[in-house]
Amino acid sequence: MPKDYGQACPVARSLAFLGERWTLLLVRDLLAGPRKFRDLTASLDGVAPTVLSHRLKLLETHGIVSRRLYSEHPPRAEYALTERGAELRPVVRALGIWGARHLGSEWTFVHDKCGEDVEIAYRCPACRKTVAADHVRRQRAAGRRAAPRPSRRGTAARP
Amino acid sequence: MPKDYGQACPVARSLAFLGERWTLLLVRDLLAGPRKFRDLTASLDGVAPTVLSHRLKLLETHGIVSRRLYSEHPPRAEYALTERGAELRPVVRALGIWGARHLGSEWTFVHDKCGEDVEIAYRCPACRKTVAADHVRRQRAAGRRAAPRPSRRGTAARP
Repeated sequence: MPKDYGQACPVARSLAFLGERWTLLLVRDLLAGPRKFRDLTASLDGVAPTVLSHRLKLLETHGIVSRRLYSEHPPRAEYALTERGAELRPVVRALGIWGARHLGSEWTFVHDKCGEDVEIAYRCPACRKTVAADHVRRQRAAGRRAAPRPSRRGTAARP
Repeated sequence: MPKDYGQACPVARSLAFLGERWTLLLVRDLLAGPRKFRDLTASLDGVAPTVLSHRLKLLETHGIVSRRLYSEHPPRAEYALTERGAELRPVVRALGIWGARHLGSEWTFVHDKCGEDVEIAYRCPACRKTVAADHVRRQRAAGRRAAPRPSRRGTAARP
């Protein structure tokens, strides 16, 4: 089981299960489309089948992955991201953009029209415009309540 | 030591060390400004000092954190993000935005002018405009070579 950090911060709450080894790489591979278990053991070269199975179940529990049986005998399943799972794309891309820029990767993320590297930005759907990084702030969500969490002292988000 | 995934993908290369437990929360806390070791043990309630020390050293090795001694006797250090470390802000925010939206957190990330939730977007600095998610693609970087990595079979990025 993943270990909760006992913090109210949404970064900590996300990382409690997304931060486990292999999980975000699994999401990365499913962002390309549905995959069978054996496709995933191939693309995630080195993952133990029991670990992969555990990660998939956990993502299913969190509504990030859905499972569809494509064979009854023997039971064989295909996995796909749900809508909330697909919304993890910016997380995966932000990691990829940073890695491509700073770890000397031979892969990069580009604008398909001009071929230049893209950056992560912020957008306000209400104002319909891009928002500079220093005009984003964290705020307590009015009327929004956290889902139940362990009782360890929570600390606020700081990013 | 963090375990490399043996993949050329920049997401996998980033996660090899950023994916370790506590590391991105440590980055989150340093995004607010320099911190002393004891500040970090307080904000990262539950982290073992040996683990925190190990994570800080690793981040220093990767040029993400810099260390400044503020007392010689006894030796006491303050930690700050370097420029490349500060560029992890979008990674931390993307996790926070997703968590705030999907895990019922009481914190959210808003546009300071209007108070509405922001979204992650992409920007092409060359074209000076926002790029829709489906106009971002991964591409092999011309002339860019990966830093040395373990010899296990590498697979391409797919996000």
